[in-house]
Amino acid sequence: MTKEELPSRSLTIDNINPNVKTAKYAVRGELAIKSEAYRSQLAKGEGKDLPFDSVISANIGNPQQLDQKPITFFRQVASLVENPLLLEKEDVLINALDYKPDVIARAKKLLKDVKSVGAYSQSQGSPGIRQSVAEFIERRDGYPADAQSIYLCGGASAGVNALLSVICATPKTGVLVPIPQYPLYTATLALLNAKVVPYYLEEESGWSTNVDGMREALKKAKDEGIDVRAVVVINPGNPTGGSLGAKDIESVLELVAEEKLVMMADEVYQTNIFEGKFHSFKKGLRDLQKSDKNKNGKFDNVELASLHSISKGMVGECGHRGGFYEMVGFDEKVVEQIYKFVSIMLCPPVVGQCLVELMVNPPKEGEPSYELYKKEYDTIFNNLHERAMALYKAFEEMEGVECQTPQGSLYLYPTINLPQKAIEAAKEKGKGGDEFYCMQLLDATGICIVPGAGFGQKEGTLHFRTTFLAPGTDWVSRITDFHKKFLDEYR
Amino acid sequence: MTKEELPSRSLTIDNINPNVKTAKYAVRGELAIKSEAYRSQLAKGEGKDLPFDSVISANIGNPQQLDQKPITFFRQVASLVENPLLLEKEDVLINALDYKPDVIARAKKLLKDVKSVGAYSQSQGSPGIRQSVAEFIERRDGYPADAQSIYLCGGASAGVNALLSVICATPKTGVLVPIPQYPLYTATLALLNAKVVPYYLEEESGWSTNVDGMREALKKAKDEGIDVRAVVVINPGNPTGGSLGAKDIESVLELVAEEKLVMMADEVYQTNIFEGKFHSFKKGLRDLQKSDKNKNGKFDNVELASLHSISKGMVGECGHRGGFYEMVGFDEKVVEQIYKFVSIMLCPPVVGQCLVELMVNPPKEGEPSYELYKKEYDTIFNNLHERAMALYKAFEEMEGVECQTPQGSLYLYPTINLPQKAIEAAKEKGKGGDEFYCMQLLDATGICIVPGAGFGQKEGTLHFRTTFLAPGTDWVSRITDFHKKFLDEYR
Repeated sequence: MTKEELPSRSLTIDNINPNVKTAKYAVRGELAIKSEAYRSQLAKGEGKDLPFDSVISANIGNPQQLDQKPITFFRQVASLVENPLLLEKEDVLINALDYKPDVIARAKKLLKDVKSVGAYSQSQGSPGIRQSVAEFIERRDGYPADAQSIYLCGGASAGVNALLSVICATPKTGVLVPIPQYPLYTATLALLNAKVVPYYLEEESGWSTNVDGMREALKKAKDEGIDVRAVVVINPGNPTGGSLGAKDIESVLELVAEEKLVMMADEVYQTNIFEGKFHSFKKGLRDLQKSDKNKNGKFDNVELASLHSISKGMVGECGHRGGFYEMVGFDEKVVEQIYKFVSIMLCPPVVGQCLVELMVNPPKEGEPSYELYKKEYDTIFNNLHERAMALYKAFEEMEGVECQTPQGSLYLYPTINLPQKAIEAAKEKGKGGDEFYCMQLLDATGICIVPGAGFGQKEGTLHFRTTFLAPGTDWVSRITDFHKKFLDEYR
Repeated sequence: MTKEELPSRSLTIDNINPNVKTAKYAVRGELAIKSEAYRSQLAKGEGKDLPFDSVISANIGNPQQLDQKPITFFRQVASLVENPLLLEKEDVLINALDYKPDVIARAKKLLKDVKSVGAYSQSQGSPGIRQSVAEFIERRDGYPADAQSIYLCGGASAGVNALLSVICATPKTGVLVPIPQYPLYTATLALLNAKVVPYYLEEESGWSTNVDGMREALKKAKDEGIDVRAVVVINPGNPTGGSLGAKDIESVLELVAEEKLVMMADEVYQTNIFEGKFHSFKKGLRDLQKSDKNKNGKFDNVELASLHSISKGMVGECGHRGGFYEMVGFDEKVVEQIYKFVSIMLCPPVVGQCLVELMVNPPKEGEPSYELYKKEYDTIFNNLHERAMALYKAFEEMEGVECQTPQGSLYLYPTINLPQKAIEAAKEKGKGGDEFYCMQLLDATGICIVPGAGFGQKEGTLHFRTTFLAPGTDWVSRITDFHKKFLDEYR
């Protein structure tokens, strides 16, 4: 029987869900897949002909893949909730394994909350852990938070998915999304067959958020008959690192209140800030609600969903899939539907929930584990800052590369100006200049970064996103060397 | 300002995603929410007026919430992958904590595979763990399996979601779903705005799967213009426990091959079998492919996705959210789209992935942890069987209750014949008779079960689903006592 005669299948690329086909997610796309193939080639000892001896995954914020050590307190507690039988040997834990009493106490508290990390929790997460999150938000913002309004989730991505799934009702539903953005947003909107309404961040001023631009984008979309329902702000920005000040947040919330939009604040990088300090949207909203600007109750019903995660920050526990979102101002009946939606997937991973609790309630000054925790936390923070600066300096010296000062998050997102010949060579391969550049970089150096097309960029500009997580400086010089050769070849 | 004058919101129950509103998921619905409220009332010591002193969650297969102990080997390994620093103290582990050398070796192997449980893995799961799953399938079925075709996922639910998301293309796409079924299927199809094409299992013959019934349902759906693309079989059944024999599987696969349908085999209860043995669809398909029946290549391109999970079986680690599916026969380009879909959510929880590895590759005879593992495993199995039989016997003695012999899974799904007066009382409250009965049971006894309406039932029949996970017999007598009183009241 020849191939043509084989019985055909139910599913072909032409008849499956078109929304899945439309969705793009470059962070784990062709380049990432090719880099994994290189990695396993090297692991099998079959990479002798490759021009590099290691693969550096700078395409994704995956700290512990790049040798960031987990925080000891977190993992000690995690080991105990995984094996509660260890709690019967406290003397061994303390005397032979250097577990401090606060580690043991915390594990017991968490086990009381969840009963077993192998049991499903409530759909929105364990009540005790949500209470701890509420207290964290209260300490952070100076305003009360309610555990009932907290939803734990399997990483912030799962939260974004739940929220957008409820928000998006028709193909005319639109959501304002910053460009550049983390492609989870555009991908999820594509899956839901809803419209991305792009607003552009301003590269020249450190990727700032310009509310006038947002307004214009909104007006244009409305004129096109799009029912715009929500604004996404990523603060600090991914891939840009840019942070919003208190005034910026106020302006966005004014727009949101006037136009009755849901505010989605992606705040997963809230502790990755090198310049200035983090301002939460929740605090911004509560400030406005008690200010003179709220005389007519304008801000009373603003619907705000704020997301946070254990994947980033100095925690970096992305493999554990933990996070949460707080919803305020939402209609109760809408919240019920969100609850139902998340309950279909049962519950977020319970160890991830425990790590959320540890993140929001780490050892306090004076407690036995504090000193080590503080040291580890500060070391990670300082290392990240140093690496960001070193990479930034390298970019500054690279011909045709322009990079904003590192402000936060885990990424740099430089502009690259490529020679016309390179653009043409890319076109010949059916690729954009940025994609071509990144593919050549991977093939020559084993370093995987993501073309700007994956996040969005103003027409006629090219960028790439790289994390600054990889330790050492060897990989930076691999990039600078490649860049020189690339320019020389295509000049 | 009065309430009416408050600024309106972006989202109301009338404008959100209608598919979310349509979706139903009774397993965690009104009854479950009410039972959680009772539980926290009791926990706060505020339940003095309640007619019960504990809440029994028999609504959901959540073994460790109902005191099932996790398997020691699994959790010892998990504690080490969570805190790899413990591996520097092997002597303490072995001498003071009774960790066996195979526990330590396995933790090292897993850490080599995943690097850190806090790091993202590949989108489809760690290659080393997928290899281990492939070897398990090979041992189970006697046919090779390919690690490339294995997708690890956050519980089988996440796998079903990925598969159906790609399969469902238009509102006319249909999927054959057994009735009764686990409501994940109908809920996910509702979210995707696709059609449930119901086929009825036959209660009288132990909830058997009747392929003629499937064929009829298919024909009817086609006549209505529905583009039926897939068949779901839950084997062993949820909520029925019914298992398919080798012949049944062959018949279903014949239908699937003739009609070009995707075969979705939900095999999460594959070890929860009290009668006969488990037959996998994968083995059934491979057997057919090399049999005479395949002379014309009829079965060569059958698309089969088989799902398994760590949540059920004797593992019961549902809080860890781990599972996998194997896809064979799918078009490569379709698989690429599934890969992209799952990559948007980054990766399944990595500790859950490790537990998948432990489930499929438990200690072998002669290995240091084998004896304890075997003892724990057998005890759980025997306890489940005993509890199932005790509950079954209680049901047999209850007036108007008819129950099939327990065959497998974690549930019983008896028919309840309620007096007309009860049906009318239910109607007055806008409820079905089964829902009314379950709500009354909860209010009177603290036992939460799920009305048959949540899973589907033939018109004019009423059922409920209960797990047989709760230990002891007190709760069973709570049910029988309630039942008597209920009948007396409404007779």
